[in-house]
Amino acid sequence: MAAPDPIAQLTQLLARLPGIGERTAQRLTFHILRSPPGYASDLSEALSRVMREVQFCSRCCTLTPTNPCAVCNDERRDDRLLCVVESVQDMLAIERTKEFRGRYHVLHGALSPLDGVGPEQLKVQELLAQLQQRDVEEVILATNPTVEGEATALYLSRLLKPFGLKLSRIAQGVPMGGDLEFADQVTLARAIEGRRTF
Amino acid sequence: MAAPDPIAQLTQLLARLPGIGERTAQRLTFHILRSPPGYASDLSEALSRVMREVQFCSRCCTLTPTNPCAVCNDERRDDRLLCVVESVQDMLAIERTKEFRGRYHVLHGALSPLDGVGPEQLKVQELLAQLQQRDVEEVILATNPTVEGEATALYLSRLLKPFGLKLSRIAQGVPMGGDLEFADQVTLARAIEGRRTF
Repeated sequence: MAAPDPIAQLTQLLARLPGIGERTAQRLTFHILRSPPGYASDLSEALSRVMREVQFCSRCCTLTPTNPCAVCNDERRDDRLLCVVESVQDMLAIERTKEFRGRYHVLHGALSPLDGVGPEQLKVQELLAQLQQRDVEEVILATNPTVEGEATALYLSRLLKPFGLKLSRIAQGVPMGGDLEFADQVTLARAIEGRRTF
Repeated sequence: MAAPDPIAQLTQLLARLPGIGERTAQRLTFHILRSPPGYASDLSEALSRVMREVQFCSRCCTLTPTNPCAVCNDERRDDRLLCVVESVQDMLAIERTKEFRGRYHVLHGALSPLDGVGPEQLKVQELLAQLQQRDVEEVILATNPTVEGEATALYLSRLLKPFGLKLSRIAQGVPMGGDLEFADQVTLARAIEGRRTF
Protein backbone atom coordinates (compact mmCIF):
# COMPACT_ATOMS: atom_id res chain seq x y z
CA MET A 1 0.00 0.00 0.00
CA ALA A 2 1.14 3.53 -0.68
CA ALA A 3 2.15 5.89 2.11
CA PRO A 4 -0.85 7.54 3.79
CA ASP A 5 -2.06 10.79 2.32
CA PRO A 6 0.08 13.55 3.89
CA ILE A 7 -2.98 15.81 4.26
CA ALA A 8 -4.92 13.10 6.13
CA GLN A 9 -1.84 12.28 8.21
CA LEU A 10 -1.32 15.88 9.37
CA THR A 11 -5.06 16.24 10.04
CA GLN A 12 -5.10 13.11 12.20
CA LEU A 13 -2.11 14.26 14.23
CA LEU A 14 -3.62 17.72 14.80
CA ALA A 15 -6.94 16.12 15.81
CA ARG A 16 -5.15 14.46 18.73
CA LEU A 17 -4.56 17.85 20.36
CA PRO A 18 -6.97 18.78 23.17
CA GLY A 19 -10.03 20.75 22.07
CA ILE A 20 -9.34 20.15 18.37
CA GLY A 21 -11.80 17.91 16.58
CA GLU A 22 -11.60 16.28 13.17
CA ARG A 23 -13.18 19.24 11.36
CA THR A 24 -11.03 21.89 13.08
CA ALA A 25 -7.93 19.80 12.40
CA GLN A 26 -8.79 19.75 8.70
CA ARG A 27 -9.30 23.51 8.70
CA LEU A 28 -5.90 23.96 10.38
CA THR A 29 -4.21 21.66 7.85
CA PHE A 30 -5.54 23.66 4.91
CA HIS A 31 -4.67 26.91 6.65
CA ILE A 32 -1.10 25.66 7.04
CA LEU A 33 -0.99 24.55 3.40
CA ARG A 34 -2.12 27.98 2.26
CA SER A 35 0.21 29.90 4.63
CA PRO A 36 3.49 31.40 3.43
CA PRO A 37 5.90 28.45 2.95
CA GLY A 38 8.13 29.52 5.83
CA TYR A 39 5.37 28.96 8.36
CA ALA A 40 5.11 25.16 8.18
CA SER A 41 8.87 24.71 8.26
CA ASP A 42 9.17 27.12 11.21
CA LEU A 43 6.46 25.18 13.05
CA SER A 44 8.10 21.87 12.15
CA GLU A 45 11.47 23.10 13.41
CA ALA A 46 9.95 24.63 16.58
CA LEU A 47 8.41 21.23 17.40
CA SER A 48 11.73 19.43 16.98
CA ARG A 49 13.51 22.12 18.95
CA VAL A 50 11.10 22.10 21.87
CA MET A 51 11.50 18.34 22.29
CA ARG A 52 15.29 18.58 21.90
CA GLU A 53 15.90 21.49 24.26
CA VAL A 54 13.16 21.52 26.87
CA GLN A 55 13.67 19.43 30.00
CA PHE A 56 12.55 19.29 33.62
CA CYS A 57 14.35 21.74 35.91
CA SER A 58 16.35 19.56 38.31
CA ARG A 59 15.18 21.73 41.20
CA CYS A 60 11.60 22.91 40.75
CA CYS A 61 10.59 20.45 37.97
CA THR A 62 9.25 23.15 35.66
CA LEU A 63 9.79 22.67 31.92
CA THR A 64 12.73 24.80 30.81
CA PRO A 65 15.39 25.11 28.11
CA THR A 66 18.04 25.85 30.78
CA ASN A 67 18.79 23.74 33.82
CA PRO A 68 18.28 25.06 36.45
CA CYS A 69 15.43 27.20 35.15
CA ALA A 70 15.44 31.00 35.08
CA VAL A 71 13.50 31.27 38.36
CA CYS A 72 15.71 28.77 40.22
CA ASN A 73 18.74 30.56 38.83
CA ASP A 74 17.57 34.02 39.90
CA GLU A 75 19.46 34.96 43.07
CA ARG A 76 17.08 37.81 43.86
CA ARG A 77 14.27 35.31 44.52
CA ASP A 78 13.23 34.68 48.10
CA ASP A 79 14.31 31.18 49.11
CA ARG A 80 12.06 31.27 52.17
CA LEU A 81 8.83 31.10 50.16
CA LEU A 82 8.00 28.03 48.07
CA CYS A 83 4.84 27.94 45.98
CA VAL A 84 3.62 24.46 44.96
CA VAL A 85 1.55 24.34 41.76
CA GLU A 86 0.04 21.60 39.64
CA SER A 87 1.32 22.71 36.26
CA VAL A 88 3.82 24.91 34.46
CA GLN A 89 0.87 26.95 33.16
CA ASP A 90 -0.19 27.66 36.77
CA MET A 91 3.35 28.78 37.56
CA LEU A 92 3.35 31.09 34.51
CA ALA A 93 -0.06 32.47 35.56
CA ILE A 94 1.33 33.38 39.00
CA GLU A 95 4.46 34.86 37.40
CA ARG A 96 2.22 37.12 35.27
CA THR A 97 0.80 38.67 38.45
CA LYS A 98 4.36 39.89 39.33
CA GLU A 99 3.28 39.62 42.99
CA PHE A 100 5.21 36.53 44.00
CA ARG A 101 9.00 36.68 44.41
CA GLY A 102 9.64 33.28 45.97
CA ARG A 103 10.44 29.89 44.42
CA TYR A 104 8.19 27.30 42.83
CA HIS A 105 7.68 23.59 42.71
CA VAL A 106 5.68 22.02 39.87
CA LEU A 107 3.92 18.74 40.70
CA HIS A 108 2.87 17.98 37.09
CA GLY A 109 -0.62 16.91 38.04
CA ALA A 110 -2.89 16.42 41.01
CA LEU A 111 -3.91 13.33 42.93
CA SER A 112 -6.66 11.47 41.13
CA PRO A 113 -6.89 7.83 42.21
CA LEU A 114 -9.59 7.04 39.64
CA ASP A 115 -7.22 8.13 36.85
CA GLY A 116 -4.37 6.16 38.41
CA VAL A 117 -2.54 9.28 39.61
CA GLY A 118 -1.06 8.71 43.06
CA PRO A 119 1.83 10.52 44.79
CA GLU A 120 4.35 8.43 42.80
CA GLN A 121 3.03 9.92 39.53
CA LEU A 122 3.64 13.46 40.83
CA LYS A 123 6.91 15.26 41.51
CA VAL A 124 6.55 14.77 45.27
CA GLN A 125 9.97 13.23 45.97
CA GLU A 126 11.50 16.17 44.12
CA LEU A 127 9.52 18.54 46.35
CA LEU A 128 10.97 16.89 49.45
CA ALA A 129 14.44 17.15 47.89
CA GLN A 130 13.95 20.83 47.21
CA LEU A 131 12.82 21.44 50.78
CA GLN A 132 16.00 19.80 52.03
CA GLN A 133 18.20 21.92 49.77
CA ARG A 134 16.62 25.31 50.40
CA ASP A 135 16.02 27.25 53.59
CA VAL A 136 12.25 27.31 53.12
CA GLU A 137 10.08 28.91 55.82
CA GLU A 138 6.66 28.78 54.18
CA VAL A 139 5.14 26.43 51.61
CA ILE A 140 2.17 27.88 49.76
CA LEU A 141 -0.05 25.10 48.44
CA ALA A 142 -1.38 26.64 45.23
CA THR A 143 -2.99 23.59 43.69
CA ASN A 144 -6.29 24.25 41.90
CA PRO A 145 -9.52 24.73 43.87
CA THR A 146 -10.91 21.46 42.46
CA VAL A 147 -11.56 18.12 44.13
CA GLU A 148 -8.18 16.81 42.91
CA GLY A 149 -6.33 20.01 43.81
CA GLU A 150 -7.87 20.09 47.29
CA ALA A 151 -7.01 16.43 47.88
CA THR A 152 -3.44 17.11 46.75
CA ALA A 153 -3.12 20.12 49.07
CA LEU A 154 -4.48 18.06 51.98
CA TYR A 155 -2.09 15.19 51.20
CA LEU A 156 0.91 17.53 50.99
CA SER A 157 -0.07 19.38 54.17
CA ARG A 158 0.06 16.09 56.05
CA LEU A 159 3.26 14.95 54.35
CA LEU A 160 5.04 18.22 55.10
CA LYS A 161 3.86 18.64 58.68
CA PRO A 162 6.98 16.96 60.18
CA PHE A 163 9.18 19.61 58.50
CA GLY A 164 7.85 22.21 60.96
CA LEU A 165 7.30 24.78 58.18
CA LYS A 166 4.51 27.27 57.84
CA LEU A 167 1.98 25.75 55.42
CA SER A 168 -0.58 27.91 53.65
CA ARG A 169 -3.26 27.50 51.00
CA ILE A 170 -4.15 30.15 48.41
CA ALA A 171 -7.33 32.05 49.27
CA GLN A 172 -10.61 30.89 47.82
CA GLY A 173 -13.52 33.26 47.33
CA VAL A 174 -15.42 35.27 44.78
CA PRO A 175 -13.21 36.28 41.82
CA MET A 176 -12.51 39.97 41.20
CA GLY A 177 -15.08 41.52 38.89
CA GLY A 178 -17.47 38.68 39.68
CA ASP A 179 -21.02 39.06 40.88
CA LEU A 180 -22.15 37.41 44.14
CA GLU A 181 -25.48 36.63 42.51
CA PHE A 182 -23.79 34.34 40.00
CA ALA A 183 -21.17 32.79 42.27
CA ASP A 184 -21.79 29.10 43.00
CA GLN A 185 -22.71 28.07 46.54
CA VAL A 186 -19.38 26.45 47.41
CA THR A 187 -17.40 29.49 46.28
CA LEU A 188 -19.68 31.82 48.21
CA ALA A 189 -19.51 29.66 51.34
CA ARG A 190 -15.69 29.68 51.08
CA ALA A 191 -15.69 33.45 50.61
CA ILE A 192 -17.69 33.95 53.80
CA GLU A 193 -15.70 31.32 55.72
CA GLY A 194 -12.42 32.94 54.66
CA ARG A 195 -13.54 36.54 55.36
CA ARG A 196 -10.90 38.98 56.54
CA THR A 197 -11.30 41.85 59.01
CA PHE A 198 -10.67 45.32 57.62
CA MET B 1 21.07 37.82 22.75
CA ALA B 2 20.38 34.15 23.25
CA ALA B 3 18.01 32.23 20.97
CA PRO B 4 14.35 32.74 21.90
CA ASP B 5 12.84 30.37 24.43
CA PRO B 6 11.70 27.29 22.47
CA ILE B 7 8.48 27.09 24.51
CA ALA B 8 7.59 30.72 23.71
CA GLN B 9 8.58 30.21 20.07
CA LEU B 10 6.30 27.19 19.58
CA THR B 11 3.48 28.96 21.44
CA GLN B 12 3.77 32.02 19.18
CA LEU B 13 3.71 29.90 16.03
CA LEU B 14 0.66 27.94 17.21
CA ALA B 15 -1.11 31.19 18.16
CA ARG B 16 -0.97 32.24 14.48
CA LEU B 17 -3.38 29.44 13.56
CA PRO B 18 -7.02 30.50 13.09
CA GLY B 19 -9.18 30.23 16.20
CA ILE B 20 -6.19 29.62 18.47
CA GLY B 21 -5.41 32.42 20.90
CA GLU B 22 -2.33 32.96 23.06
CA ARG B 23 -3.73 30.97 26.00
CA THR B 24 -4.87 28.00 23.90
CA ALA B 25 -1.52 27.98 22.10
CA GLN B 26 0.26 27.74 25.44
CA ARG B 27 -2.00 24.88 26.50
CA LEU B 28 -1.24 23.05 23.23
CA THR B 29 2.51 23.59 23.68
CA PHE B 30 2.49 22.03 27.15
CA HIS B 31 0.24 19.24 25.93
CA ILE B 32 2.78 18.48 23.19
CA LEU B 33 5.64 18.62 25.69
CA ARG B 34 3.88 16.14 27.95
CA SER B 35 2.83 13.82 25.09
CA PRO B 36 4.73 10.62 24.30
CA PRO B 37 8.00 11.71 22.62
CA GLY B 38 7.00 10.25 19.26
CA TYR B 39 4.09 12.66 18.88
CA ALA B 40 6.02 15.91 18.43
CA SER B 41 8.45 14.33 15.98
CA ASP B 42 5.56 12.77 14.02
CA LEU B 43 3.85 16.15 13.88
CA SER B 44 7.09 17.87 12.90
CA GLU B 45 7.68 15.35 10.11
CA ALA B 46 4.03 15.51 8.94
CA LEU B 47 4.38 19.30 8.58
CA SER B 48 7.55 18.98 6.51
CA ARG B 49 6.02 16.22 4.45
CA VAL B 50 2.80 18.08 3.69
CA MET B 51 4.75 21.07 2.38
CA ARG B 52 7.11 18.84 0.40
CA GLU B 53 4.52 16.56 -1.20
CA VAL B 54 1.28 18.50 -1.50
CA GLN B 55 0.75 20.60 -4.61
CA PHE B 56 -2.04 22.03 -6.73
CA CYS B 57 -3.65 19.53 -9.10
CA SER B 58 -2.78 20.78 -12.58
CA ARG B 59 -6.37 20.14 -13.68
CA CYS B 60 -8.85 20.96 -10.90
CA CYS B 61 -6.48 22.95 -8.65
CA THR B 62 -7.27 20.95 -5.52
CA LEU B 63 -4.43 20.32 -3.08
CA THR B 64 -3.09 16.81 -3.61
CA PRO B 65 -0.02 14.61 -3.11
CA THR B 66 -0.45 13.16 -6.62
CA ASN B 67 -0.76 15.13 -9.83
CA PRO B 68 -3.36 14.82 -11.28
CA CYS B 69 -5.39 14.27 -8.11
CA ALA B 70 -7.32 11.10 -7.32
CA VAL B 71 -10.62 12.54 -8.59
CA CYS B 72 -9.12 13.85 -11.86
CA ASN B 73 -7.38 10.49 -12.28
CA ASP B 74 -10.55 8.46 -11.71
CA GLU B 75 -11.85 7.35 -15.11
CA ARG B 76 -15.25 6.38 -13.74
CA ARG B 77 -16.02 10.02 -13.01
CA ASP B 78 -18.49 11.80 -15.24
CA ASP B 79 -16.64 14.35 -17.37
CA ARG B 80 -19.87 16.06 -18.33
CA LEU B 81 -20.49 17.48 -14.86
CA LEU B 82 -18.12 20.05 -13.36
CA CYS B 83 -18.70 21.35 -9.84
CA VAL B 84 -17.00 24.66 -9.01
CA VAL B 85 -16.23 25.19 -5.31
CA GLU B 86 -14.41 27.82 -3.29
CA SER B 87 -12.16 25.55 -1.25
CA VAL B 88 -10.72 22.07 -0.96
CA GLN B 89 -12.76 21.64 2.24
CA ASP B 90 -15.95 22.34 0.27
CA MET B 91 -14.90 19.71 -2.29
CA LEU B 92 -14.26 17.20 0.51
CA ALA B 93 -17.67 18.02 2.05
CA ILE B 94 -19.39 17.25 -1.27
CA GLU B 95 -17.32 14.06 -1.64
CA ARG B 96 -18.55 12.93 1.78
CA THR B 97 -22.15 13.01 0.51
CA LYS B 98 -21.19 10.32 -2.07
CA GLU B 99 -23.90 11.86 -4.29
CA PHE B 100 -21.76 13.61 -6.86
CA ARG B 101 -19.83 11.62 -9.44
CA GLY B 102 -18.61 14.41 -11.70
CA ARG B 103 -15.43 16.49 -11.67
CA TYR B 104 -14.45 19.50 -9.58
CA HIS B 105 -12.75 22.82 -9.92
CA VAL B 106 -11.39 24.57 -6.82
CA LEU B 107 -11.24 28.38 -7.03
CA HIS B 108 -9.29 28.84 -3.76
CA GLY B 109 -11.40 31.73 -2.57
CA ALA B 110 -14.30 33.93 -3.56
CA LEU B 111 -14.47 37.42 -5.04
CA SER B 112 -14.05 40.02 -2.32
CA PRO B 113 -12.93 43.37 -3.73
CA LEU B 114 -12.57 44.93 -0.26
CA ASP B 115 -10.03 42.24 0.66
CA GLY B 116 -8.24 42.69 -2.66
CA VAL B 117 -9.51 39.39 -4.09
CA GLY B 118 -10.41 39.79 -7.75
CA PRO B 119 -10.68 37.14 -10.48
CA GLU B 120 -6.87 37.15 -10.91
CA GLN B 121 -6.45 35.95 -7.30
CA LEU B 122 -8.73 32.96 -7.96
CA LYS B 123 -8.12 29.89 -10.16
CA VAL B 124 -10.37 31.25 -12.91
CA GLN B 125 -7.93 30.90 -15.83
CA GLU B 126 -7.43 27.29 -14.76
CA LEU B 127 -11.21 26.80 -14.82
CA LEU B 128 -11.35 28.03 -18.41
CA ALA B 129 -8.47 25.70 -19.28
CA GLN B 130 -10.28 22.74 -17.73
CA LEU B 131 -13.44 23.57 -19.68
CA GLN B 132 -11.44 23.53 -22.88
CA GLN B 133 -9.87 20.16 -22.08
CA ARG B 134 -12.98 18.31 -20.94
CA ASP B 135 -16.28 17.64 -22.65
CA VAL B 136 -18.29 19.45 -19.98
CA GLU B 137 -22.05 19.79 -20.41
CA GLU B 138 -23.03 21.35 -17.10
CA VAL B 139 -21.17 23.57 -14.67
CA ILE B 140 -22.57 23.54 -11.14
CA LEU B 141 -21.65 26.74 -9.33
CA ALA B 142 -21.30 25.50 -5.75
CA THR B 143 -19.73 28.56 -4.18
CA ASN B 144 -20.98 29.37 -0.68
CA PRO B 145 -24.36 31.06 -0.13
CA THR B 146 -22.62 34.21 1.16
CA VAL B 147 -22.29 37.66 -0.38
CA GLU B 148 -18.83 36.74 -1.75
CA GLY B 149 -19.94 33.32 -2.94
CA GLU B 150 -23.02 34.74 -4.66
CA ALA B 151 -20.93 37.44 -6.35
CA THR B 152 -18.47 34.80 -7.53
CA ALA B 153 -21.26 32.60 -8.91
CA LEU B 154 -22.75 35.60 -10.73
CA TYR B 155 -19.35 36.58 -12.14
CA LEU B 156 -18.66 33.04 -13.35
CA SER B 157 -22.14 32.66 -14.83
CA ARG B 158 -21.48 35.72 -17.01
CA LEU B 159 -17.95 34.65 -17.87
CA LEU B 160 -19.03 31.13 -18.87
CA LYS B 161 -22.13 32.16 -20.84
CA PRO B 162 -20.28 32.21 -24.21
CA PHE B 163 -19.35 28.53 -23.74
CA GLY B 164 -23.00 27.57 -24.31
CA LEU B 165 -23.00 25.16 -21.36
CA LYS B 166 -25.76 24.48 -18.90
CA LEU B 167 -25.02 26.55 -15.80
CA SER B 168 -26.61 25.73 -12.45
CA ARG B 169 -26.39 26.93 -8.87
CA ILE B 170 -26.73 24.67 -5.81
CA ALA B 171 -30.18 24.91 -4.20
CA GLN B 172 -30.67 27.29 -1.33
CA GLY B 173 -33.37 26.73 1.25
CA VAL B 174 -34.02 25.53 4.77
CA PRO B 175 -31.43 22.98 5.92
CA MET B 176 -32.54 19.42 6.68
CA GLY B 177 -33.51 19.04 10.33
CA GLY B 178 -33.95 22.80 10.59
CA ASP B 179 -37.03 24.56 11.89
CA LEU B 180 -38.82 27.15 9.73
CA GLU B 181 -39.43 29.22 12.84
CA PHE B 182 -35.71 29.74 13.30
CA ALA B 183 -34.67 30.10 9.66
CA ASP B 184 -33.57 33.61 8.75
CA GLN B 185 -35.71 35.67 6.38
CA VAL B 186 -33.38 35.44 3.38
CA THR B 187 -33.09 31.65 3.66
CA LEU B 188 -36.84 31.28 4.00
CA ALA B 189 -37.49 33.60 1.06
CA ARG B 190 -35.06 31.55 -1.06
CA ALA B 191 -36.74 28.31 0.05
CA ILE B 192 -40.13 29.59 -1.10
CA GLU B 193 -38.74 31.10 -4.29
CA GLY B 194 -36.98 27.82 -5.14
CA ARG B 195 -39.97 25.58 -4.30
CA ARG B 196 -40.37 22.39 -6.30
CA THR B 197 -43.57 20.71 -7.42
CA PHE B 198 -44.23 17.24 -6.04
